[in-house]
Amino acid sequence: MESESGDKYAADLSSIREAQMRISSYIHRTPILTAETLNSISGRKLYFKCECFQKGGAFKFRGACNAVFSLDDSQAAKGVVTHSSGNHAAALALAAQLRGIPAYIVIPRNAPNCKVENVIRYGGQIIWSEANMQSREEVATKVLQDTDAVLIHPYNDRRVISGQGSISLELLEQAPNLDTIVVPISGGGLISGVALAAKSINPSIRVFAAEPKGADDAAQSKEAGKIIKLSQTNTIADGLRASLGDLTWPVVRDLVDDIITVEDKEIVEAMRLCYEILKIAVEPSGAIGLAAILSNNFKQDPISKDCRHIGIIISGGNVDLSVLWDSLNK
Amino acid sequence: MESESGDKYAADLSSIREAQMRISSYIHRTPILTAETLNSISGRKLYFKCECFQKGGAFKFRGACNAVFSLDDSQAAKGVVTHSSGNHAAALALAAQLRGIPAYIVIPRNAPNCKVENVIRYGGQIIWSEANMQSREEVATKVLQDTDAVLIHPYNDRRVISGQGSISLELLEQAPNLDTIVVPISGGGLISGVALAAKSINPSIRVFAAEPKGADDAAQSKEAGKIIKLSQTNTIADGLRASLGDLTWPVVRDLVDDIITVEDKEIVEAMRLCYEILKIAVEPSGAIGLAAILSNNFKQDPISKDCRHIGIIISGGNVDLSVLWDSLNK
Repeated sequence: MESESGDKYAADLSSIREAQMRISSYIHRTPILTAETLNSISGRKLYFKCECFQKGGAFKFRGACNAVFSLDDSQAAKGVVTHSSGNHAAALALAAQLRGIPAYIVIPRNAPNCKVENVIRYGGQIIWSEANMQSREEVATKVLQDTDAVLIHPYNDRRVISGQGSISLELLEQAPNLDTIVVPISGGGLISGVALAAKSINPSIRVFAAEPKGADDAAQSKEAGKIIKLSQTNTIADGLRASLGDLTWPVVRDLVDDIITVEDKEIVEAMRLCYEILKIAVEPSGAIGLAAILSNNFKQDPISKDCRHIGIIISGGNVDLSVLWDSLNK
Repeated sequence: MESESGDKYAADLSSIREAQMRISSYIHRTPILTAETLNSISGRKLYFKCECFQKGGAFKFRGACNAVFSLDDSQAAKGVVTHSSGNHAAALALAAQLRGIPAYIVIPRNAPNCKVENVIRYGGQIIWSEANMQSREEVATKVLQDTDAVLIHPYNDRRVISGQGSISLELLEQAPNLDTIVVPISGGGLISGVALAAKSINPSIRVFAAEPKGADDAAQSKEAGKIIKLSQTNTIADGLRASLGDLTWPVVRDLVDDIITVEDKEIVEAMRLCYEILKIAVEPSGAIGLAAILSNNFKQDPISKDCRHIGIIISGGNVDLSVLWDSLNK
């Protein structure tokens, strides 16, 4: 598949199929859940692809695993490095552990505790940075110089995008009649892989991005026709605060049909529905696809009336529930 | 399969297979989840049968559905009645709704709100009772007289036991190498169906019951060799406060290998692991199987060293999480 400007995208169906073969013995093939109650509320058939059940609690393990197992032995031996707010970090640590190589993880000081714990659980070596992208990149550069390890970017990486695309291959096997897929968007690695695979298999399928209003750089970028970066973000969805990269932007520009932005209160309501109806633990970023489908922004979109069988990617389930246990232990 | 006294049990593999065929188009075939982290903590391979994803949020829909669709048309037309702390009530309301008949549900005033809401969602007609078994039964008897409907007991009913047994048929197809199954015990309907099916298919499989220390009537009954009823119970597991019935007791007496009792704090810790590692929403009763496997009572049991591949039935996920949403909405 070529971009509108004639260039190839960072990944394609072939690289995504290769990724699926490479990672299939390491990942969980996650189930699809459905619920009549949510079909009834939304007026559509919804198919929830539960990547919250993926190893490490999020889809990120697919891309990290593909990247780590793509390295040749001499590259791999020096280890891998990344900077991440959490899920990619834990995923990379786990993939590195499975390959038996070191993982150096730069984590901003404001990352949720449960995500930091996952990195520690999988044997990652944590290096702290300040809570901004500049500090994250500076610290990561320093680690790279010190270790000669390989940087695995959380999303702006062909191997990572290809790994995330394996979700579409599974999803379209499990629910072949989908006409629409809704995907959370942050740096764009997930939606790039999902859109490239899904539209190669079925060019008429629609791919919508779901984005928090308080971090709507992708929506602004689509509007402007170029990558827009925000100086600050304000959303409960801690996994959706990154900006598009040069490898993900062309895919988002050309293959993502529309971006649905939602308020944080819509995200929290969707989390509640995921817990109470689907019985799954989701993080705010993971619930945003359902929030988008239930939002007025979607219902008022003229295309939405043709969306009858909708795949929703529940991207992750790493959420800090200490308030819940505190209340139960009283 | 015959009981030790030569009588037939209330259900058998044939009635359970019939139930499975009768209900298969209505129920969810629930997935099995696994997690390396929990395997590592327990030192065994654990297979979680997620009945929290069943319609109505609990396994109870299997038995209720089998009972409702076993009725002939003239019986069914008058409707069904039950008294229940919640999950059987919602399940019966849903099954009746699917068949297009009325469901009269007697609910004790102390039932959790989320369970009452489920009954209302599925169109059940609620009649309140006091929070004790005598009042529940008296009110139900009055409703039966007024309506001429059919009583569907939550567990002491052949059709209900047979429906619950369909879990074993699925579980042993999904994880054929199990040597042990752990099942929450309350009135005994679930474990009777599960044990009858599993031991008919594989006589060497072990079936353990998991029971709260504060409602350990089943453990006391096994010890005494007869049904013991408690004058009061004290446990967070609101679904596990009932006493054994005359149809479930013989199965529990003869086919349940042992009963593992756990403290409420062990149940809450297992709930936390279900949320944080498995990413599933479980109610206290649903988490008790994992609590049992992690308990010292189990680890000190000499049989436990032979339990390597353990199926754990996560019986339901209907839990009131309002404290969580209150904190997130702050």
